[in-house]
Amino acid sequence: MAAKVGIVMGSDSDLEIMSKAADVLDVLQIEYDITVISAHRMPDIFYDYAKTAEEKGYKVIIAGAGGAAHLPGMTAAIFPMPVIGVPIMTKSLGGVDSLYSIVQMPGGIPVATVAINGALNAGLLAAKILATSDPELLERIKSYALGLKENVLAKSEKLDEMGYKEYLKSM
Amino acid sequence: MAAKVGIVMGSDSDLEIMSKAADVLDVLQIEYDITVISAHRMPDIFYDYAKTAEEKGYKVIIAGAGGAAHLPGMTAAIFPMPVIGVPIMTKSLGGVDSLYSIVQMPGGIPVATVAINGALNAGLLAAKILATSDPELLERIKSYALGLKENVLAKSEKLDEMGYKEYLKSM
Amino acid sequence: MAAKVGIVMGSDSDLEIMSKAADVLDVLQIEYDITVISAHRMPDIFYDYAKTAEEKGYKVIIAGAGGAAHLPGMTAAIFPMPVIGVPIMTKSLGGVDSLYSIVQMPGGIPVATVAINGALNAGLLAAKILATSDPELLERIKSYALGLKENVLAKSEKLDEMGYKEYLKSM
Amino acid sequence: MAAKVGIVMGSDSDLEIMSKAADVLDVLQIEYDITVISAHRMPDIFYDYAKTAEEKGYKVIIAGAGGAAHLPGMTAAIFPMPVIGVPIMTKSLGGVDSLYSIVQMPGGIPVATVAINGALNAGLLAAKILATSDPELLERIKSYALGLKENVLAKSEKLDEMGYKEYLKSM
Amino acid sequence: MAAKVGIVMGSDSDLEIMSKAADVLDVLQIEYDITVISAHRMPDIFYDYAKTAEEKGYKVIIAGAGGAAHLPGMTAAIFPMPVIGVPIMTKSLGGVDSLYSIVQMPGGIPVATVAINGALNAGLLAAKILATSDPELLERIKSYALGLKENVLAKSEKLDEMGYKEYLKSM
Amino acid sequence: MAAKVGIVMGSDSDLEIMSKAADVLDVLQIEYDITVISAHRMPDIFYDYAKTAEEKGYKVIIAGAGGAAHLPGMTAAIFPMPVIGVPIMTKSLGGVDSLYSIVQMPGGIPVATVAINGALNAGLLAAKILATSDPELLERIKSYALGLKENVLAKSEKLDEMGYKEYLKSM
Amino acid sequence: MAAKVGIVMGSDSDLEIMSKAADVLDVLQIEYDITVISAHRMPDIFYDYAKTAEEKGYKVIIAGAGGAAHLPGMTAAIFPMPVIGVPIMTKSLGGVDSLYSIVQMPGGIPVATVAINGALNAGLLAAKILATSDPELLERIKSYALGLKENVLAKSEKLDEMGYKEYLKSM
Amino acid sequence: MAAKVGIVMGSDSDLEIMSKAADVLDVLQIEYDITVISAHRMPDIFYDYAKTAEEKGYKVIIAGAGGAAHLPGMTAAIFPMPVIGVPIMTKSLGGVDSLYSIVQMPGGIPVATVAINGALNAGLLAAKILATSDPELLERIKSYALGLKENVLAKSEKLDEMGYKEYLKSM
Repeated sequence: MAAKVGIVMGSDSDLEIMSKAADVLDVLQIEYDITVISAHRMPDIFYDYAKTAEEKGYKVIIAGAGGAAHLPGMTAAIFPMPVIGVPIMTKSLGGVDSLYSIVQMPGGIPVATVAINGALNAGLLAAKILATSDPELLERIKSYALGLKENVLAKSEKLDEMGYKEYLKSM
Repeated sequence: MAAKVGIVMGSDSDLEIMSKAADVLDVLQIEYDITVISAHRMPDIFYDYAKTAEEKGYKVIIAGAGGAAHLPGMTAAIFPMPVIGVPIMTKSLGGVDSLYSIVQMPGGIPVATVAINGALNAGLLAAKILATSDPELLERIKSYALGLKENVLAKSEKLDEMGYKEYLKSM
Repeated sequence: MAAKVGIVMGSDSDLEIMSKAADVLDVLQIEYDITVISAHRMPDIFYDYAKTAEEKGYKVIIAGAGGAAHLPGMTAAIFPMPVIGVPIMTKSLGGVDSLYSIVQMPGGIPVATVAINGALNAGLLAAKILATSDPELLERIKSYALGLKENVLAKSEKLDEMGYKEYLKSM
Repeated sequence: MAAKVGIVMGSDSDLEIMSKAADVLDVLQIEYDITVISAHRMPDIFYDYAKTAEEKGYKVIIAGAGGAAHLPGMTAAIFPMPVIGVPIMTKSLGGVDSLYSIVQMPGGIPVATVAINGALNAGLLAAKILATSDPELLERIKSYALGLKENVLAKSEKLDEMGYKEYLKSM
Repeated sequence: MAAKVGIVMGSDSDLEIMSKAADVLDVLQIEYDITVISAHRMPDIFYDYAKTAEEKGYKVIIAGAGGAAHLPGMTAAIFPMPVIGVPIMTKSLGGVDSLYSIVQMPGGIPVATVAINGALNAGLLAAKILATSDPELLERIKSYALGLKENVLAKSEKLDEMGYKEYLKSM
Repeated sequence: MAAKVGIVMGSDSDLEIMSKAADVLDVLQIEYDITVISAHRMPDIFYDYAKTAEEKGYKVIIAGAGGAAHLPGMTAAIFPMPVIGVPIMTKSLGGVDSLYSIVQMPGGIPVATVAINGALNAGLLAAKILATSDPELLERIKSYALGLKENVLAKSEKLDEMGYKEYLKSM
Repeated sequence: MAAKVGIVMGSDSDLEIMSKAADVLDVLQIEYDITVISAHRMPDIFYDYAKTAEEKGYKVIIAGAGGAAHLPGMTAAIFPMPVIGVPIMTKSLGGVDSLYSIVQMPGGIPVATVAINGALNAGLLAAKILATSDPELLERIKSYALGLKENVLAKSEKLDEMGYKEYLKSM
Repeated sequence: MAAKVGIVMGSDSDLEIMSKAADVLDVLQIEYDITVISAHRMPDIFYDYAKTAEEKGYKVIIAGAGGAAHLPGMTAAIFPMPVIGVPIMTKSLGGVDSLYSIVQMPGGIPVATVAINGALNAGLLAAKILATSDPELLERIKSYALGLKENVLAKSEKLDEMGYKEYLKSM
């Protein structure tokens, strides 16, 4: 089956963070491509990527970048469907530079921005976008959310039983 | 036809900004509801709103809020499809408080955040989300983007003709 | 005796910080419950928690959260007595995101915000709130404050005696 | 009846903001004193104020200050019951200087901090503190909250009826 | 004579600021083109612009943009000679978003960034770049600098003569 | 009598703020010179100014500057006695740029930094520095402080008498 | 000989940083006292300290504090001669909270603020203040500055000789 | 051959970062000098350096500095050709202090600012400036850019082949 989601990042140094988007798409059984393309270092290849994305069948693109992060916004300038931006944390400014570069887009070119290093949520948001027309996927997303809830519940119960001092020791 | 997009804001003081989301949905011929619900001042009504949104047929919710802006994130905690957050500019901090309160969501609960006061882009992003399964809407979005391009082109040509000194006088 | 203070946090990763609120309540002989509830991952359980808090006998709730920190504000939207918010430090933004998400509440829904990672002060503030109607507790708080003072005094005297070079070596 | 709440500010230029704390205490029928004392310009008078506050019967002190805002924290260093700090907006830094100076207190000396210019919430928080031992006051607070809710509801209904374009014109 | 400097901006709302770059180039007798091209709204036209800039004879490009400001960096990704970026002030964040989006470029793609709204300096920097191989232009730049110096000197002397109180009245 | 304090600023646009330093020195009967010298636009004249300041009899220099504010630090690099820096508020960044440029000096070259636009305090600090060896000046400073105190006291009494509602109307 | 400089800090955790002020005063042969006094935890002892400082012979007080750093400003409210404030770096906010709490003082109460963790410069500034009436001390300060210069010169020459690659290896 | 680029920094602690500018100039076969000169600790030597730079044949100066970073701006005040500023990351503020001190220059004195710690880009920008009149250098710069592109391409292909899980393990 053709990939519905493209995951793209400007540098392989972002891969460890961005792979969490892929992980959640795997769990939710959504096909995706994952690739490294620098809008700055190879603008022509990037243009091709963004221009052909629709015909390749992508419905959503997840783009991660750090610092003066132009990849998400430039993708959104070319690809007509939703682009999700993941601001990557930076050593000097903590990622506030990445965040501003991605979220403060001008009118007409939205980028759906998630938290700094929030690639997991980017994957999940892509799934939710696809679920607007896929009731079965929506059910899988609800199950996934239920799993998160049960995970916290289990911890909550363990904390009740153990008391916080024992719980802290067990962490 | 039932509304596919819910637009919600915490206070009618946000309406002037948030109405730009409605305007763009009108242009793109997408049905929407627009309402004022404060997650803080009427949490039970807010819960009802978020819980019944799916059965009302909403596919996307656009939520705008300022300051300690919890409406988008709490909506995303309940509604299973995409929630778009619009950080409203604040007098003291310029809206960086609103932005952080909306974008820095924990794993599992994404909010698709747009620019401070970026309601127009929120409306357009909602349309792009719906367009992932609606080819006709996608064409309308492409036409809209073309309009933006032509608008800049016209200005560009006018600037070429007039020179910048005359152009500035004419603004 | 029924707990007068509820301590709640969104994730067990906040427990190490939040346990300092419990520690000071122990010292001041105040009953409390401590639990993990995510307003985002389990909003219905959270609502129950906040709605039943008054009938459980809570007079104060201490809520800690990080990033887009909605737990304190949403608790304050439901529970009618004081809610104390503890902004948890974040890796990317140092906790300024948590702080803004908690302190910048709209008119009508106050959250008594303490310093980033200031859980000890949250516990102490809860005690001071209860001490407005409990003279014996007020005496215990005064003793506690005296202890802090004497602790600094002892260090001050030690510094006088040793000189700063020796003191630094002894640290 | 003796005042239970002291409202204090460093300069009469803060009075317009701080008066909103007095307004809400009036509505909730709580006695208060309101005064201008500069911890910086008259430290001895300030010390007297803070030291005699308990014997004057204050249960809570609301202190507002801007810039290097020391009044709330220094009050909390002397007065043993809750101190609520109101960071006043500043022209150069928007009040983030006031906020940090008030909220980032060291362990042992909490200041219950509200939003920048959040004096209304300071008054309401003082009331909630007193309501922990005053069921009648708690009822008045609940009525006040209900009033806020009904106010938003009325606007919400008006928006439904008028549509947002007419509503905006009517603002 | 062919233009050696291209001045480009994303929107005609930036023209008032950006025209100061043109003004200083006029003074220094350097040919330039000035145009409005949005990298976001017309990416293909932008690509053409950046790709053909070298053959048109540009030696330097000055690019101004605000918010998520991608125009300078994307120009630098394509045009092989110096690109000067002008961060435009924004209403919400004062232009710190523009600044970060322009200056924090990754290794390999420098943008010579000037102050927020610093278009005059952008023009002057372009001139200095050209002056590295044009001794006559360098002399004109030195004269220009001398003019700035004499302007301050004249004010300084006027202040000495008048005293500051009279000087202030005369401003 | 020779001036003991030099007041210098980079531009006459800073004069309105900086004149407050002169005003307070007038009140405290301290001789001063006030001048406009740009370290950037006339570095040689600036060097002369800083190098000859000691022989002219200056004991303290007050330097005000905005943006990338180098005047105070460069003065401190040359003049061996105290330099007081006044960060001037900027339109884009509120003066945080000026503040950081002045206060964050490297080891060996202190600049005594006051608040953004804090020229009054700069004048007063200069006086306090001179008062370390001038008991009569110290008495004048104490009288000045007493005046500030009495000014607040008078307002405080007026507020007590009028009540805050009347007081606000009278402002 | 009586101490002319008081060094005070709010907590012994600040001693490692603050000791650098003492070190430079030792080098410049200036007597000082160094002590730990918390304005928050022992306000009465702090008041005594500040009130008796003049009669003890102090001409300058250096005060270091972190977070909501009130010690320098409160000292300046009581002690009539110069107070130098050292903002201590904080884990969450890097010390910007300390800086704002110290530098943004209201008119009438200056604090001579140095860089975050800039205790060395605080010691040197205290010396420069005393040197306004002590020509021998001024000579020692000039020698100290010369030493700093020669230290950099030596490194500069070593770099010239070794080349930067060898120099880096030798660091 | 005479050096065309001067690399200067205020302290040898900046050498590790600044050496990356030298590295890239080596690759591009451009002669440079590299030296340590503190504008603050040796202002006279600094002045000589900046004043004689033109006659030594420098066409561009790259200046790196941290904190209250005055070296780039003061160099630009004296040297008439382009000055490139490198803001060095600081421990407390991440380098935002360095960035503001360098980029926010007043009209008339531009500094071409690159990213925090962006010395590689400073070197490359110097090369691009020289390339405006040196077609052979321009070809070498294009080859260098091609190398960067091929480096990313190779990683991109490796990622395609290995899949992201294997790729991450191989990093």
